[in-house]
Amino acid sequence: MKQIHCDWFMTANNWTAKIIDGKEIAEGIRSRIASEVSRMKELIGQVPGLAVILVGQRRDSETYVRNKTIASEEVGIKFKMIVFPENCTECEVCNALCRFNEDPSIHGILVQLPLSEHLDEAKILSVISLEKDVDGFHPLNIGNLAMQGMEPLFVPCTPKGCIELLLQSGVEIMGKKAVVIGRSNIVGLPTSLLLQRHHATVTVLHAFTKNPEKIAREADILVSAAGVPNLVRGSWVKPGAVIVDVGTNPIEDQISEHGYRLIGDVCFKEATRIASAITPVPGGVGPMTVAMLLCNTLESAKRAFNFT
Amino acid sequence: MKQIHCDWFMTANNWTAKIIDGKEIAEGIRSRIASEVSRMKELIGQVPGLAVILVGQRRDSETYVRNKTIASEEVGIKFKMIVFPENCTECEVCNALCRFNEDPSIHGILVQLPLSEHLDEAKILSVISLEKDVDGFHPLNIGNLAMQGMEPLFVPCTPKGCIELLLQSGVEIMGKKAVVIGRSNIVGLPTSLLLQRHHATVTVLHAFTKNPEKIAREADILVSAAGVPNLVRGSWVKPGAVIVDVGTNPIEDQISEHGYRLIGDVCFKEATRIASAITPVPGGVGPMTVAMLLCNTLESAKRAFNFT
Repeated sequence: MKQIHCDWFMTANNWTAKIIDGKEIAEGIRSRIASEVSRMKELIGQVPGLAVILVGQRRDSETYVRNKTIASEEVGIKFKMIVFPENCTECEVCNALCRFNEDPSIHGILVQLPLSEHLDEAKILSVISLEKDVDGFHPLNIGNLAMQGMEPLFVPCTPKGCIELLLQSGVEIMGKKAVVIGRSNIVGLPTSLLLQRHHATVTVLHAFTKNPEKIAREADILVSAAGVPNLVRGSWVKPGAVIVDVGTNPIEDQISEHGYRLIGDVCFKEATRIASAITPVPGGVGPMTVAMLLCNTLESAKRAFNFT
Repeated sequence: MKQIHCDWFMTANNWTAKIIDGKEIAEGIRSRIASEVSRMKELIGQVPGLAVILVGQRRDSETYVRNKTIASEEVGIKFKMIVFPENCTECEVCNALCRFNEDPSIHGILVQLPLSEHLDEAKILSVISLEKDVDGFHPLNIGNLAMQGMEPLFVPCTPKGCIELLLQSGVEIMGKKAVVIGRSNIVGLPTSLLLQRHHATVTVLHAFTKNPEKIAREADILVSAAGVPNLVRGSWVKPGAVIVDVGTNPIEDQISEHGYRLIGDVCFKEATRIASAITPVPGGVGPMTVAMLLCNTLESAKRAFNFT
């Protein structure tokens, strides 16, 4: 495990941030999961099962789901998917979820977000059985994540991936000032709760925050989950800070294969000259989210089969 | 409703903070609750019921429970209490809670905290039926408080009281920098979540925070719930800040009637010269906690009787 030494007095221009390689770290995690799945299969003849529901044809959602399918199959997790058309009803989605809830071969269920506007996201997510909520978005899970002395059944994948990136890069979290940009239920909020669980001093920035640049510049650990391309400029970064860029914003790009490419919330070029370490987009948090999903699915199956 | 004008450039010595009178504000709230309870009694012949469990003989806990009894009776809420000896078992407490859960004349149940060390607080609290959890400490409630688009059944009393004090004093919360000192499950955490729900930019300080004084001094709204007498000195306060002092620390005082008196986390003398408004101890948050408990019990009874 490498230590990142942060020299707070170094001038901005002398710095070149270490790139935190999410792809490589995720690969290591996936390989450990694959071993565990084999061991499970050998010893009890069972494998974990993951079910995904996709609504509509958002190109980013399709990419994410494709990545999840491939990753699951690679580690030996059984993958089931149902695709609904954009104009499907809440009832159809809920019925599919109920069937997955009752299916003993399924240990993790997720609904790819965001959903079309006519569907009530909270209502649909609340149908997922707590024991199979591998995304960890159930309010009870979030409550247990927030409270001291409690343990959530699952830690939401992207936040868990962010912390794992920090830990595996040797970044100490305890006592550090952490700033999270964005307070969404699926990333910003649980990431802030998780950082606090690791004893960081956490500030959450959002649309109503005045002078976010100044507050961000005080962060030892800066997590951006705003979904705004290039929001975080060099001037937002404290020299030597560690940056986790959760933004995955598709922008038009005629040269790239699919006509678009993903960029982060952070202006990478500027930030690398000031930060001590940074996650790239793509290849940073993205692969970790998928790895953590597999991790949660394995955990769930282990609980279901009482397998240790 | 009076507006508090914060003149950030005023020098510290010229300032005298407005005292936020929690006793008076709580009185207004209790009087509205009393009217509602009478109306309920008149129209459907029912009143709300509150049950409290007290373990042991902590003098501060006894004071709190006595205040709750008196306040309930004054507004017409039926009050039931069970006192257990210090060395009671988890099982005895849980059995009593189950009986209250099933009692249709009871709409709010609370266990006076802290409990003796040999009792598992989380386990005991989890027995309280969600619909009667007027303290709002259930993880599902906390999760719903934390998440955007969700509504908790009950907002925990002390945090709700803090926000109510701010609102009724005309303090705008949206866009303000709020710092909460302490991250307990019962005050610090839910207060930070509630301030964020009101669109403040929130930072939570705790035992591992480095240089808390500096961070506190940036707060427009400073809430202290650390339980450390005189922790917050004048140098912790931004000129013109609004201070909510949740600390109620008993200190020996031979002159006072019971041999002790309560003081806050904030060095009141110093802070009043720098803040624009401050809650005193006693007479600030304390009376509000009790008023909010009555408020939650009334809400619960209204839900149970489908009374609007």
